[in-house]
Amino acid sequence: MGKIIECVPNFSEGRDSALIERIVEPLKNRAGFRLVSYEPDQDYNRTVVTLLGDGEAMIQPLLEFVDRARIAIDLNHHSGQHPRMGAVDVIPFIPIAEATVEECVALAERLGALVSQTFDIPVFLYALAAKKPDRVALPNIRKGEFEGMKDKIREPEWVPDFGRPEIHPTFGTVAIGCRIPLVAYNIDLGTTDEKIAEKLSRVIRQSSGGFQHIQAGPAFLAARGHVQVTMNILDYRKNPVYRIWETVQMEAKRFHVEVPSCEIVGLMPKEALLDSLKYYFAVAGRPFPAAMPIETAVSEGIRYLHLRDFDAAKIIESHLKPEEIR
Amino acid sequence: MGKIIECVPNFSEGRDSALIERIVEPLKNRAGFRLVSYEPDQDYNRTVVTLLGDGEAMIQPLLEFVDRARIAIDLNHHSGQHPRMGAVDVIPFIPIAEATVEECVALAERLGALVSQTFDIPVFLYALAAKKPDRVALPNIRKGEFEGMKDKIREPEWVPDFGRPEIHPTFGTVAIGCRIPLVAYNIDLGTTDEKIAEKLSRVIRQSSGGFQHIQAGPAFLAARGHVQVTMNILDYRKNPVYRIWETVQMEAKRFHVEVPSCEIVGLMPKEALLDSLKYYFAVAGRPFPAAMPIETAVSEGIRYLHLRDFDAAKIIESHLKPEEIR
Repeated sequence: MGKIIECVPNFSEGRDSALIERIVEPLKNRAGFRLVSYEPDQDYNRTVVTLLGDGEAMIQPLLEFVDRARIAIDLNHHSGQHPRMGAVDVIPFIPIAEATVEECVALAERLGALVSQTFDIPVFLYALAAKKPDRVALPNIRKGEFEGMKDKIREPEWVPDFGRPEIHPTFGTVAIGCRIPLVAYNIDLGTTDEKIAEKLSRVIRQSSGGFQHIQAGPAFLAARGHVQVTMNILDYRKNPVYRIWETVQMEAKRFHVEVPSCEIVGLMPKEALLDSLKYYFAVAGRPFPAAMPIETAVSEGIRYLHLRDFDAAKIIESHLKPEEIR
Repeated sequence: MGKIIECVPNFSEGRDSALIERIVEPLKNRAGFRLVSYEPDQDYNRTVVTLLGDGEAMIQPLLEFVDRARIAIDLNHHSGQHPRMGAVDVIPFIPIAEATVEECVALAERLGALVSQTFDIPVFLYALAAKKPDRVALPNIRKGEFEGMKDKIREPEWVPDFGRPEIHPTFGTVAIGCRIPLVAYNIDLGTTDEKIAEKLSRVIRQSSGGFQHIQAGPAFLAARGHVQVTMNILDYRKNPVYRIWETVQMEAKRFHVEVPSCEIVGLMPKEALLDSLKYYFAVAGRPFPAAMPIETAVSEGIRYLHLRDFDAAKIIESHLKPEEIR
């Protein structure tokens, strides 16, 4: 079995560990795929789950997982630093090895139809599964969040792709789609001033005129006591991590703010890390090896990119058997 | 008279100074506007002309200028580092003070009709004067250049906005339009390796995934003996000069190439210079003055941005009377 699909459901609970365990439980120890990680964030009040394996095998467990979130989470009483419109907010399928975009779009459509039929939850198809151009970018769909979606979903242009134009009263709505691997990347700032994080976000994000393929915004991490620029790098081949890291450092100088560290949320392809290491090796005049073990890449990444909470488990390839790696 | 329009015709001769004088002569000492500068570039084999004043008063002299270029230049025997499709290649009208985009579009349309009727030269309306979405970006129109335009102009989607779908045999064709002020900005690299200039262009330009509002490409300056990244900053409010300068320096480190200097072609608004100076003042912890004379801004620009061949005449406002400055 060489075909590998990644699925990264995000759900809107990041604080109550008993609740989190109950919600992810249907994704544990299932045949055909692995629950690689689930990463709760207290400040975001959100958990990012990563599955790897056979996409078909994920459908039934994902339905059970959506059901658990439906029972456990009431968005009327939810707050957090991350925008959200659903108890399960977004479910992307990502082709990793020997899988196509078309297969992942088909999975998104099947899961979307089932979620809406089974639980009466409206579903938007997004990214590469979008049926309308303004549904490609998730922030477009999610704008207004849970609170605004009640009215928004009744507008003719926001009729959901599956289900009635009516949010579920406690769950809200969910975006399901297919995308290529992105890098969810956050840069820590040595300040509690959210305005500075907003200004730096504007510099780098596409919607404000910055780099293409970058979605970014500010976030205050009360548990850690600082703000960060939180972003998705939608095409890391075009805008590698090091370029964003260096640009944010350059811009932060004007605010006399430290940029001490950064983090990857979920997994990143090994290629994305190596691409950035190549820059630093070239600057340092170090020849870049033809092959680099994951452990070496990780320690060089910590050295040059100041990645915190970073280890081999953050690299997609560390979860694949050798024969699954392209 | 407070209304000020800028017009920046570019023509395809940058080497023969007698010829250049003959072509710009109809633009000298005319009532209603000033010929602010004309800047020939040997390597580009192209001259950038800047007019400031009453747009209506420019129309008849511009027609005479187009006629001189038509007589003097045969693009069948022209080569240079800058892409071109016409003896006069592009004529933008730019609202500067108390003038609207609509007025400048009307000027572009009037001049376009006259150029085509008088000289049988086909005209494309571009940028804010474009009638079709794929004619907004000048590089789209100019793709294929003079040599390719012969066939391209016969394709149904490239029928000119004025004139027959047939290039003028020696003049080619011209783009006339309206745009907001842009900054034509070139960064010098301490190398003759055009591949490095191309790689750096790809980092920053929109079409390769870099910053929005940036058009960029490599150029080899034989007369100066180095390459440069040549670019248009289409929206300097979104992507200020300093950000591009710093990003190119950061990226150039991996090639171990010096980035000694840069230049502005034509004029830049004072605001665009001040916006960049604010960054360096903030980094240096220097308070930014409420008002800064042009001469001071220029010397600080040379200091922080390493601008070469830069003086007050490069700033639009230095050519305006005090009452014309908004």
